[in-house]
Amino acid sequence: MVVKTLIRNGEYHDSVSLMLIAKELRQMVGVVDAAVIMATEANKDFLRNAGMENDEVKLASPNDLVICIKGEAVDINKALSEAERLLSVKQAAQAIGGGISYRSKTLRAVAKANPNSNMAVISVAGKYAFDEAWEALHLGLHVLLFSDNVSIEHEVLLKEYAHDHGLLLMGPGAGTAIINGVSLGFANVVPKGPVGIVSAAGTGLQEVSTILAKHGVGISQGIGTGGRDLKMEVGGIMMLDGIEALQGDDATKVIVLISKPPDPVVASKIMKQLIKNVKPSVICFLGSEWSVVNKSPSVFPVSTLKDAAIVAVQLSRGEEVKLANQFTNNYIEFIERFFLTIKRLKPDQRYLRALYSGGTLAYEAQVIWKEIVVDKVYSNVPLIIEDKLPDSYKSIGHTIIDLGEEEFTVGRPHPMIENDLRIRRLIQEANDPEVALILFDVVIGYGAHPDPASELVKAVNEARKIAQENRREIVFIASVTGTEADPQKLSRQVKSLNEAGVFVCECNADAARLAVKVINRN
Amino acid sequence: MVVKTLIRNGEYHDSVSLMLIAKELRQMVGVVDAAVIMATEANKDFLRNAGMENDEVKLASPNDLVICIKGEAVDINKALSEAERLLSVKQAAQAIGGGISYRSKTLRAVAKANPNSNMAVISVAGKYAFDEAWEALHLGLHVLLFSDNVSIEHEVLLKEYAHDHGLLLMGPGAGTAIINGVSLGFANVVPKGPVGIVSAAGTGLQEVSTILAKHGVGISQGIGTGGRDLKMEVGGIMMLDGIEALQGDDATKVIVLISKPPDPVVASKIMKQLIKNVKPSVICFLGSEWSVVNKSPSVFPVSTLKDAAIVAVQLSRGEEVKLANQFTNNYIEFIERFFLTIKRLKPDQRYLRALYSGGTLAYEAQVIWKEIVVDKVYSNVPLIIEDKLPDSYKSIGHTIIDLGEEEFTVGRPHPMIENDLRIRRLIQEANDPEVALILFDVVIGYGAHPDPASELVKAVNEARKIAQENRREIVFIASVTGTEADPQKLSRQVKSLNEAGVFVCECNADAARLAVKVINRN
Repeated sequence: MVVKTLIRNGEYHDSVSLMLIAKELRQMVGVVDAAVIMATEANKDFLRNAGMENDEVKLASPNDLVICIKGEAVDINKALSEAERLLSVKQAAQAIGGGISYRSKTLRAVAKANPNSNMAVISVAGKYAFDEAWEALHLGLHVLLFSDNVSIEHEVLLKEYAHDHGLLLMGPGAGTAIINGVSLGFANVVPKGPVGIVSAAGTGLQEVSTILAKHGVGISQGIGTGGRDLKMEVGGIMMLDGIEALQGDDATKVIVLISKPPDPVVASKIMKQLIKNVKPSVICFLGSEWSVVNKSPSVFPVSTLKDAAIVAVQLSRGEEVKLANQFTNNYIEFIERFFLTIKRLKPDQRYLRALYSGGTLAYEAQVIWKEIVVDKVYSNVPLIIEDKLPDSYKSIGHTIIDLGEEEFTVGRPHPMIENDLRIRRLIQEANDPEVALILFDVVIGYGAHPDPASELVKAVNEARKIAQENRREIVFIASVTGTEADPQKLSRQVKSLNEAGVFVCECNADAARLAVKVINRN
Repeated sequence: MVVKTLIRNGEYHDSVSLMLIAKELRQMVGVVDAAVIMATEANKDFLRNAGMENDEVKLASPNDLVICIKGEAVDINKALSEAERLLSVKQAAQAIGGGISYRSKTLRAVAKANPNSNMAVISVAGKYAFDEAWEALHLGLHVLLFSDNVSIEHEVLLKEYAHDHGLLLMGPGAGTAIINGVSLGFANVVPKGPVGIVSAAGTGLQEVSTILAKHGVGISQGIGTGGRDLKMEVGGIMMLDGIEALQGDDATKVIVLISKPPDPVVASKIMKQLIKNVKPSVICFLGSEWSVVNKSPSVFPVSTLKDAAIVAVQLSRGEEVKLANQFTNNYIEFIERFFLTIKRLKPDQRYLRALYSGGTLAYEAQVIWKEIVVDKVYSNVPLIIEDKLPDSYKSIGHTIIDLGEEEFTVGRPHPMIENDLRIRRLIQEANDPEVALILFDVVIGYGAHPDPASELVKAVNEARKIAQENRREIVFIASVTGTEADPQKLSRQVKSLNEAGVFVCECNADAARLAVKVINRN
């Protein structure tokens, strides 16, 4: 294994081209590692760490190009010539297509030729980036400054000029933005919608906007500020301007901010800007304890990107904000707890019993159980006549009962309105020592009982007491058919059931599937 | 325990009032059961099964009201007088407010007084229901016929008349409908949107419309047909008219049908009607094997209500239809499989390693791990300086690496573009006998690698081979930041990772949370 180095004095290439060349070299036979870089101090450190530094490299200046190859002695010269060949191909292409040196002219020319253009995306090496951005701003263009390695003093100069002239200066190092539905830099194809994002973090913006997309919620604008914007030196100029822009934007109904923890002075400026406006906002300052100082009812601090997206979904739909739902944060714990619970059942407890108020839900549960369970599933509303329960009032083996059927509703209200009969049946099932699990539905909405969960929870507690007196465990699974806007409120029903230790699934099919896990528990 | 009966000849009350009275009686001291019902044959059967029949009841006619109380002898007379008191209060209220006998007149009067009204909701005892519905149709009104116990001959008469006159006859026994955003009968408050539903099942319509609401997708129309509509005798008149109405409705982009399995002749009529139009449709005929005969690319048969909703969500968003996603059908199995897998790890395998391309995702993982894990979490981008990894190229204990940091990207493309370094590091971690689990992110979208999962999967396979050669198991968790519309396609990335046995979570926060379960596995 040897390392061989080639220095080309005063030769500049853009970093993307150099990276692509190095990548090709690393794929050659006998090459272990390869670097093709400008000899800046940072790059020389990198070569030292990679074991590719030598005296030649030490003496090279930032204007020199360094080619380093680590590999088998027999292959290394071939790799070096390939590097030179690739560089010359690159230079020829530049001479034809217009290289780095023409870019500055091009920006002005492009702006002149396209008087309606209003934004420049700048992605040149850091040392040229300031000049390009400065010129773009003076041409009246918003700027997405993709480039890194712009000094903080230059960043402040650019942002102050932009701020004074009503322009956006996103960056430096702003890799991601979504402006008027156009994705710039590293960004995803997401629908248009009511959530506006200002982010100091590119993948943060990507993660939140894509989780929103998975929930069917779109983005109005996604503004990148660059990673240093919320530091004391920059003072959050771009984030503050971004918030103001979104506050004035009719398409934006919810504002989301994403950053590492900001400087405390900047944080308080941001808070002041947010509460100037009634638009609800979500703050995700990852790793910050800032949430405790929040006093505004329209500002929602969260601790993860996922929670930022979930809260934004809820706010965009006018729903109550809640995170303690097993299908946002805690579904992993939910399933884990379920499997731990069913381990405590006795071996004799082999049967599932389902007590439905909704006829179609009883039918759906049968479809699922019969698909998975080997044993027979009895019902008073069987899919096939062979599964008909001889007496609807007495369960056998695995049984699914539709309490909305005529034999139960003659002279009584439907079980969606009155749970008396279902409560009695639930107690009856709990007294059966072979019963492991009771599944039931809770249907809310217009016409239904004003608070079915509260009635059913009393029965669950009584049933649990019976089981405990007989030194048994009993497992309850339920799902709630309903929405947050229903008079009985989905979240209130789920909360009551959760508090009673019922495993509440997101829909009836999930509940039926989870129940079956009891049968093959050992 | 005794049973006492009181018969009131020729006295009619509506069934809801009687149910409410019976409910009050059942709550009285000493009362075990109570029935207050008209002495129809069905009701007499019910009393016999409940052990409340006697000779008096046997002789009563359907025009007689029966009050039966089962309970303690000392309390039973008190309950009977309470029943009579409640009935007289009820009659007085009817005399003031206008009782049953005025309803028929009222329908015509109401229609006259409100010439813009276009629908009648009819909920009277079955024997009066046909006349009311017939009159409503002749007044030019659509009808939601809530009532049960209408003969099938009457149903056909009503539906044929409605069909010929361009009217809807929903029912009989149609408990649920959502028309132009108004919820009728048993129904939930759901947003307006692109999905139109025709359902022979009330709770089916409720379950599908509420699952859609949970995914942020709304309903254009929810039409109830009544439970017998798809039987041979009725011939699906209402479902066919409903489909045609939705096909012509601009607000409806996706059609969902819900029913028990229809008569085969009716099924083929429905199929013919569906394929007259390019609108995609989802068919949920619960318990049916009908799916196998489907030949139309715009018709999607599903086997559960949940799947009907999930497919409708995907179709309404123009996404590819897929159900085999761990977060639709199989998240329970997903979590279960994960817990079984980590059981196979050796006791020495104690550490988590995370290899990120997205900086903010690495940050989010730290926030989550540090919140849950007792041990120290090292990183090259630590939340606090004490957690700084001494050498970014060498993990210690639980380590989270951001491969997008400068020490890794000098002279190389960012790890979102090129995975070479991440792949090497993944192999390096797999060689460490103390490593239990490797977590990584896959960020797609514009600017990112054209198919990152395929590259990473090769590394996962190689790492797994290393582990196996050392008789170890190794667990991989990932999440994909991206959407279906991205060039790399979310589902394609997830599929590659799934096939390689990687546990793919819905977002990075979920992935980080799941990883921590390894630490406390015993």
